[in-house]
Amino acid sequence: MAPRKGRLVFVGLGLHDENGITVSGLREIDSADVVFAEDYTSTLAAGSLDRLAAKTGKRIETLDREAVEDGTRLLDACNEKRVVLLVAGDPMTATTHIDLRLRAVKRSIDTSVIHGASALTAVPGLLGLQQYKFGRTTTLPFPQEGYSPTSPYEVISENLSRGLHTLVLLDIDAENSRYMTAGEGLHLLMDMERRVGKGIVSDTTTVCAVARAGAPDCVVMAGRVKDLISADLGSPLHSLVVPGKLHFMEEEALDLLAHRTRH
Amino acid sequence: MAPRKGRLVFVGLGLHDENGITVSGLREIDSADVVFAEDYTSTLAAGSLDRLAAKTGKRIETLDREAVEDGTRLLDACNEKRVVLLVAGDPMTATTHIDLRLRAVKRSIDTSVIHGASALTAVPGLLGLQQYKFGRTTTLPFPQEGYSPTSPYEVISENLSRGLHTLVLLDIDAENSRYMTAGEGLHLLMDMERRVGKGIVSDTTTVCAVARAGAPDCVVMAGRVKDLISADLGSPLHSLVVPGKLHFMEEEALDLLAHRTRH
Repeated sequence: MAPRKGRLVFVGLGLHDENGITVSGLREIDSADVVFAEDYTSTLAAGSLDRLAAKTGKRIETLDREAVEDGTRLLDACNEKRVVLLVAGDPMTATTHIDLRLRAVKRSIDTSVIHGASALTAVPGLLGLQQYKFGRTTTLPFPQEGYSPTSPYEVISENLSRGLHTLVLLDIDAENSRYMTAGEGLHLLMDMERRVGKGIVSDTTTVCAVARAGAPDCVVMAGRVKDLISADLGSPLHSLVVPGKLHFMEEEALDLLAHRTRH
Repeated sequence: MAPRKGRLVFVGLGLHDENGITVSGLREIDSADVVFAEDYTSTLAAGSLDRLAAKTGKRIETLDREAVEDGTRLLDACNEKRVVLLVAGDPMTATTHIDLRLRAVKRSIDTSVIHGASALTAVPGLLGLQQYKFGRTTTLPFPQEGYSPTSPYEVISENLSRGLHTLVLLDIDAENSRYMTAGEGLHLLMDMERRVGKGIVSDTTTVCAVARAGAPDCVVMAGRVKDLISADLGSPLHSLVVPGKLHFMEEEALDLLAHRTRH
């Protein structure tokens, strides 16, 4: 029998844990010869991949950043095998996976995508903020020696100038199991405010935070920076939203869904 | 036995068909006393809800726009029953459902959300465009007697002025089973161009279209307006993207993933 043509299927795991995967995603795992996962662009609750492996009876090998970005081993496996790459959230929201897919296409490997729920829509929705009122999304990176860009601050400023909300994703340093908390993110924004000084964030600015979007114990908060900066939202992942002009229904949502604090 | 406290769970059906639901979503259906669905803010392929009903052994009653927006019957059912409302995509991306959730909270009904994959992240991802380079999203409504707003054109213009891409969602008129096609959407944009005249869209402007995001037969196209405006992308749902400044990897993606036409 001639070797079956290989393929690469990016399967989104959605949010929180192994139950965020879709029926279509489970089917792809069932029919896969090899199942890889990566957990550095996003991640699920601890143990989720082990439970998914047990449930599907498949071995799931987690690839680190280097192995995914290099991609050679993964793409070589696709030459004759059906390969699934599991990715938390919706796979193609990460540039790394677009790049990997393009390299697969250039090798004439069939590729497809099984989409998953993403924090990009879940976080605004949990806060009751209207999707079409968000400007561009930004990510706050962990500051590094000689690298602490203020571009996220500039994105927020640009969005605010048009009355738009900003979804602020927080950095993940999977190799060191560091996940930026909402408090850390707010400290970074306050630091950028001190450096750039456009006056867009202060102790009393209303901000929103969501922890563990999609989890039964997800936390949805709104309040002043000085209230949220010290709040303990529990385990990762956390996200922030800096709201722009709020519609009255959004104001109500921050009170009722995000328990906004006003002192 | 005291009546069990009711609750309302919004369950996202994700994309394409009944297999876009998550494992968590299926569990909510299993434990529900009443299962409603709405298919006017978004929709799945024909027959999907019937197959989901057959698969889960639950009766699924589809509510029309009026019943969802009024909400009385749905919210009354939540007083003592576990009610699930099935919504294509990610439920809280539609303002209607935020409003419904707020009314439930005001009635002291427990509410929760099971997220689903959404065209808002799937469409950019299928095109290989980078999520953080999108400005605000807009929707093209079907023109009505005395109502043909040019606000979508203004949103695209504002995004383009910052080099940002625009996701353009296309109107759904479920009552009349009308779903705007990519071609109809492009005709409307060209008409807005004639009326507003900022020179942002012409026959040779590069635009992108995605049909049936998340479906095995999804179509992903990029090309000039004059090429796409007459292209047959098949059955709904369709979406458009008007790209801003393209990164070289995005240029490559439009060629390799969206088979960009250049004559």
